[in-house]
Amino acid sequence: MRAITIAFALLCCGAPLAVVEAASPTVIDLTHTFDTNTIYWPTEPGFDLKKLDDGYTERGYYYAANRYDAPEHGGTHIDAPHHFSKPGQTVEQIPLDRLVGEAVCVDVTTPCSVDPDYLVTIDDLKQWEKTNNASLAEKIVLLNTGYAEHWPDRQKYLGTAEMGPAAVAKLHFPGLDPAAASWLCSARRIKAVGIDTASIDNGPSRMFQSHVNLFEHQVPALENVASMKDLPATGFRVFALPMKIAGGSGAPCRVVAVLEE
Amino acid sequence: MRAITIAFALLCCGAPLAVVEAASPTVIDLTHTFDTNTIYWPTEPGFDLKKLDDGYTERGYYYAANRYDAPEHGGTHIDAPHHFSKPGQTVEQIPLDRLVGEAVCVDVTTPCSVDPDYLVTIDDLKQWEKTNNASLAEKIVLLNTGYAEHWPDRQKYLGTAEMGPAAVAKLHFPGLDPAAASWLCSARRIKAVGIDTASIDNGPSRMFQSHVNLFEHQVPALENVASMKDLPATGFRVFALPMKIAGGSGAPCRVVAVLEE
Ligand SMILES: [Zn+2]
Ligand SMILES: [Zn+2]
Repeated sequence: MRAITIAFALLCCGAPLAVVEAASPTVIDLTHTFDTNTIYWPTEPGFDLKKLDDGYTERGYYYAANRYDAPEHGGTHIDAPHHFSKPGQTVEQIPLDRLVGEAVCVDVTTPCSVDPDYLVTIDDLKQWEKTNNASLAEKIVLLNTGYAEHWPDRQKYLGTAEMGPAAVAKLHFPGLDPAAASWLCSARRIKAVGIDTASIDNGPSRMFQSHVNLFEHQVPALENVASMKDLPATGFRVFALPMKIAGGSGAPCRVVAVLEE
Repeated sequence: MRAITIAFALLCCGAPLAVVEAASPTVIDLTHTFDTNTIYWPTEPGFDLKKLDDGYTERGYYYAANRYDAPEHGGTHIDAPHHFSKPGQTVEQIPLDRLVGEAVCVDVTTPCSVDPDYLVTIDDLKQWEKTNNASLAEKIVLLNTGYAEHWPDRQKYLGTAEMGPAAVAKLHFPGLDPAAASWLCSARRIKAVGIDTASIDNGPSRMFQSHVNLFEHQVPALENVASMKDLPATGFRVFALPMKIAGGSGAPCRVVAVLEE
């Protein structure tokens, strides 16, 4: 019977072999759009899309094309190690092995909802391993502070809607404790880290020590990751694919999660 | 013995469970870097990276950051359907299901090596299905013309190194026949198409009919895909993740192939 069924499928189907294809995996987008509301640092002008063509041409076909102009660091993006490390890799030098791999999502929404400057600690991370009976070793580690839910409200997301250098002292949002950044690199050899706030260091940071600690280990950071509310704690892969800017200290990055089939 | 081996691993390993992780998949980058040599249309100024900071700050840490400025269409990028279709999707509207999926690589290097304006035909595609005993249905279809090997030599890659409007008439590179573009959409319902030349229409095209035919079916096109020489014909997935430009007619796109494990 099986042989007959297959023959029947091949005879009837305009697309041979389509009947034996695997289902598509579930892919979750963890990326904010780039538009006029995209959040950048208070000192930075934002994303600018310049419309060049948009309409029917003399020859009859429709044609639209634009230019874009933006700082590297803003929106959902990657920090290459070179951002805070002179010998660190620039964007195009980051091995794909760090950007593609098994991932985990660490829920720190509860402490972050009461302390806007919360720093994720080594204890939080060890507790996560215990609770989930899983290891952070060699993973892409995503930190879910819940701040993605505030996007693109600058007051709630950054702690201030003001622009310019004076606004920097008013920044409040959670980050990763510098000691935990070192521990993730040395004790867990993670591939990369990601967070749904504007920076892997928290709002009040002035020495950006988590950036420095990560990047001396060539561990890149994803910032302004979009909502992780649909992610499980484990059992998924992340593809964090940045625009391949040669010499870039950072780049816009499309981040997606692929759930296990 | 198995139980003892596992217990031993857990006792000795600082990273619990690391011993049972799956191996990383093989990932092939199909993306050119964005730099001063990146190829754009002869009428377009190219990619511009403006260095803003690069050195040690007063506070003692190293800091590098840049801005970038470019047309949407150049380098390894995606054409959203809206590029040549008024009701077509813009970049951020393209479903991830079209950008992630089982893929195939169609080798047309031989005809393209003798005819610089070669158009990939329906017959080429049907022949590929026969030879590989596989279907193009619902695949991401990559066309390997061999032109990626000429990158970034504009004379060889575009047929002319001249810039400006007069150079457009001198463009020569292979593309997809407009009838084959329609057939891929209607008869094979492909997810997306990619090519390692500057355009899915060939160099001499003036009506861009393959763009029009693909985009009226909401099938996006990847252009300037990098060398496919390490790709098999079948048995891999493509992740083509564009910068998520709201309202974009196109965007820089990181394209990678993941080989089956
Ligand atoms: Zn950054
Ligand atoms: Zn294009």
